[in-house]
Amino acid sequence: MAEEDVLRKQADMVRRLKQEKASSEEITKQVSKLLEMKSAMHPEEGKHKFVLKTPKGTRDYNPKQMAIREKVFNIIIQCFKRHGAETIDTPVFELKETLTGKYGEDSKLIYDLKDQGGELLSLRYDLTVPFARYLAMNKITNIKRYQIAKVYRRDNPAMTKGRYREFYQCDFDIAGHYDIMIPDAECLKIVHEILCALQIGDFLIKVNDRRILDGMFAVCGVPDIKFRTICSTVDKLDKMAWEDVKNEMVGEKGLAPEIADHIGGYVRLHGGLSLIEQLLQDPKLSQNKLAQEGLEEVKQLFKYLDLFGISDQISFDLSLARGLDYYTGVIYEAILLQEPNDHMEESVGVGSVAGGGRYDGLVGMFDPKGRKVPCVGVSIGIERVFSIMEQKMEASEEKILTTETQVLVASAQKKLLEERLKLVSELWDSGIKAEILYKKNPKLLNQLQYCEETGIPLVAILGEQELKDGVVKLRDVVTREEVDICRRKLVEEIKRRTHIL
Amino acid sequence: MAEEDVLRKQADMVRRLKQEKASSEEITKQVSKLLEMKSAMHPEEGKHKFVLKTPKGTRDYNPKQMAIREKVFNIIIQCFKRHGAETIDTPVFELKETLTGKYGEDSKLIYDLKDQGGELLSLRYDLTVPFARYLAMNKITNIKRYQIAKVYRRDNPAMTKGRYREFYQCDFDIAGHYDIMIPDAECLKIVHEILCALQIGDFLIKVNDRRILDGMFAVCGVPDIKFRTICSTVDKLDKMAWEDVKNEMVGEKGLAPEIADHIGGYVRLHGGLSLIEQLLQDPKLSQNKLAQEGLEEVKQLFKYLDLFGISDQISFDLSLARGLDYYTGVIYEAILLQEPNDHMEESVGVGSVAGGGRYDGLVGMFDPKGRKVPCVGVSIGIERVFSIMEQKMEASEEKILTTETQVLVASAQKKLLEERLKLVSELWDSGIKAEILYKKNPKLLNQLQYCEETGIPLVAILGEQELKDGVVKLRDVVTREEVDICRRKLVEEIKRRTHIL
Repeated sequence: MAEEDVLRKQADMVRRLKQEKASSEEITKQVSKLLEMKSAMHPEEGKHKFVLKTPKGTRDYNPKQMAIREKVFNIIIQCFKRHGAETIDTPVFELKETLTGKYGEDSKLIYDLKDQGGELLSLRYDLTVPFARYLAMNKITNIKRYQIAKVYRRDNPAMTKGRYREFYQCDFDIAGHYDIMIPDAECLKIVHEILCALQIGDFLIKVNDRRILDGMFAVCGVPDIKFRTICSTVDKLDKMAWEDVKNEMVGEKGLAPEIADHIGGYVRLHGGLSLIEQLLQDPKLSQNKLAQEGLEEVKQLFKYLDLFGISDQISFDLSLARGLDYYTGVIYEAILLQEPNDHMEESVGVGSVAGGGRYDGLVGMFDPKGRKVPCVGVSIGIERVFSIMEQKMEASEEKILTTETQVLVASAQKKLLEERLKLVSELWDSGIKAEILYKKNPKLLNQLQYCEETGIPLVAILGEQELKDGVVKLRDVVTREEVDICRRKLVEEIKRRTHIL
Repeated sequence: MAEEDVLRKQADMVRRLKQEKASSEEITKQVSKLLEMKSAMHPEEGKHKFVLKTPKGTRDYNPKQMAIREKVFNIIIQCFKRHGAETIDTPVFELKETLTGKYGEDSKLIYDLKDQGGELLSLRYDLTVPFARYLAMNKITNIKRYQIAKVYRRDNPAMTKGRYREFYQCDFDIAGHYDIMIPDAECLKIVHEILCALQIGDFLIKVNDRRILDGMFAVCGVPDIKFRTICSTVDKLDKMAWEDVKNEMVGEKGLAPEIADHIGGYVRLHGGLSLIEQLLQDPKLSQNKLAQEGLEEVKQLFKYLDLFGISDQISFDLSLARGLDYYTGVIYEAILLQEPNDHMEESVGVGSVAGGGRYDGLVGMFDPKGRKVPCVGVSIGIERVFSIMEQKMEASEEKILTTETQVLVASAQKKLLEERLKLVSELWDSGIKAEILYKKNPKLLNQLQYCEETGIPLVAILGEQELKDGVVKLRDVVTREEVDICRRKLVEEIKRRTHIL
């Protein structure tokens, strides 16, 4: 305080000198003196001018968020395993050329690594292309695998909506030559099972087929070469009004307005089996072989979805296009339908939480001889689910435990550190989850408080008397009941009380 | 074949024309013809000139390797949780400036991202610096956390030895103002527990202290400014002979030869408590306050390690230096001592599998006011452990299961796809891990073979008769026994047989 007073006086003097328009020499002298005094008082100041943050579009997970994440992952992994999937892992970056030409207009969002000599590398944009590279490289022609890992996109992040530049994808894919729509139906069943198990509210799964889209583009008069770019524009229908989508088609992509309107007539359609039947009779579409094939197969798909008892939550939707280039057949996307919780102040605009489809040509792009391995898969976008779960947890009273500690080894008197260390070591070696406070002589009250704060259910208390008697006082943190337990039986008793045997 | 003969003849002709020094016009014509013939024969060739590989120093994990990885992670996570740790996650990249000035001479190994506009980013080099950044950013003054994640180093990979450019670190750290050496001792206990549980052979944990090293440098006459760079050189003693280390000290780092020799006398020393006592009496070292403090505290540490019953496998070793700049107190490194398995053809040179130490200044480097949060931690380097485990697994007869499927839903006759779909869906909805083959009419033999190959223990077989009777034939894949089970009781029976209730 005294030091600060001196500092304030010096600052006042500088101010006065300036007001009085004193000689610049005198001012400079006093300012220097002030700065010296300041830096002597705060020697560390000035060293830390950098911004203390995570990169744009990324975030840390604190222990509570990790607890939620683990819960979500467990639900998803259990489902993937229930369907017999193996798991693989691939590096976070790939050769740049591995990713080139796979993502269409989204390629601009790929993160490149700096050329530091050696190979040119990019961070993975999804898990599908690395999976296809893995299949081709190892000449695998059939596999059912899941992979849960982070992917990277230089998008404009909207983090409140759960959109990040670094985010998890939970992918399940079936590769192999199989009979029509059977693996595809299983992928949709998996999306349905996971979204039900997560309990994040009502959802709808939109289904379409690239062959139907391409057939539709053809009968509307879109030139072949513009199929993929018009497909990208159609894909924006979930975020943009039809008028804006049409403007992009006509203005940016050079489509005739009447062709755009023709497309507009189709993409308004959505429904179930009856819509598929209707389109099979559509005078124009029925003349297009590709559309016909797609419609027949989607009809078959809906029959399987019926057998799975999930067709109620699945909508055949001609506006669904999916952005990526590599899809060749059925495509799908799951969206959440309502606010998941009415206790929330703000409505969470979550939108799409899963998507995928069939990509029969991607593996062939990597194979030196172009050999194709048909694939179908689904990707669960978990960040949006996290956002909802987090808000639900915060709104609820439920306390989230971030550790699994069963017992705190405590002491009632001073000078018992060595005894505490011996006991906690015994417990660790017996597989008990145990902690001590890292103090030589912690107060009993502080030790008990630590248990209350962190949710540790039991305290094993040592004192001179207990050590003499060969017992440990075992305290239940909630009921505050204490009993002396023979040291030899302590492990067993802790296991019994915490239900782990 | 006939086509290839034609091609060979054409190639012969080109060769002959060249030998005969024919007109360049004629040669060019025939070469063009040859190329045309080639590309007509292999129309896909030329499209796939890229290399089908993962980036240098990285690798995929196949399902079997993933099974081993999961096993190793479970052992490690169980240990971290047994010691009451929470977990966090941080992004794979950080602002470049976050990593600047933390790693000393190793900074050149940091992967930078390309400047694509926006922030300058680098891939994380370890989990310690991001952890310190996380603590400072969130003003956390005490936490016990673990983090298992990949880190990135542009090192020269020696993948056969388990050294990669992308590799996992499993970190456990204790942050907070605590009493001397208590958390430090727990970190060593954790290394000991994990290396025992992994069963990868004998190991030794070397311990030293930066204060002892610095004190030693001081009494040997190393100028203050050269402490860190000489420390980096001492760190190479595990890979280089003393003569080469000395040459680097004298030649590259400009130390007088007699100073280097003086250091050489100390770094040869290793032992236990008695060596510490001896050094406390060392006429020179005992005059250095810093060394004195370090020695006293390491002595205390060894007492705690005795209480934990692990001091036999811990060696106080003056040659241990650790490469990184940020350590301020005790440092340690665990090394494997012998070939883990004598069935191996080649000895695996694994070396260091864990390391860590105290870094009391790192968090303060991020705090705007320089507030310090003392930390101590350990990092388990798991790639080397994987290498050993993998080779052990391959050498053993044990079959590694990569899925957990309990039952395959099969059919004995044709045209039962819909019935199979209905049943497998019922099983999934009841939490049973079940699969079907994705064929309309698979042969029973193929279905049974699939179970043998993948280790599925049960087959639920449907046939016309079973459907009429309301039963399912449940077959044990190993014993080949079959019993009819009432469809209503199928789930219960499968759970009973696969011990999951």
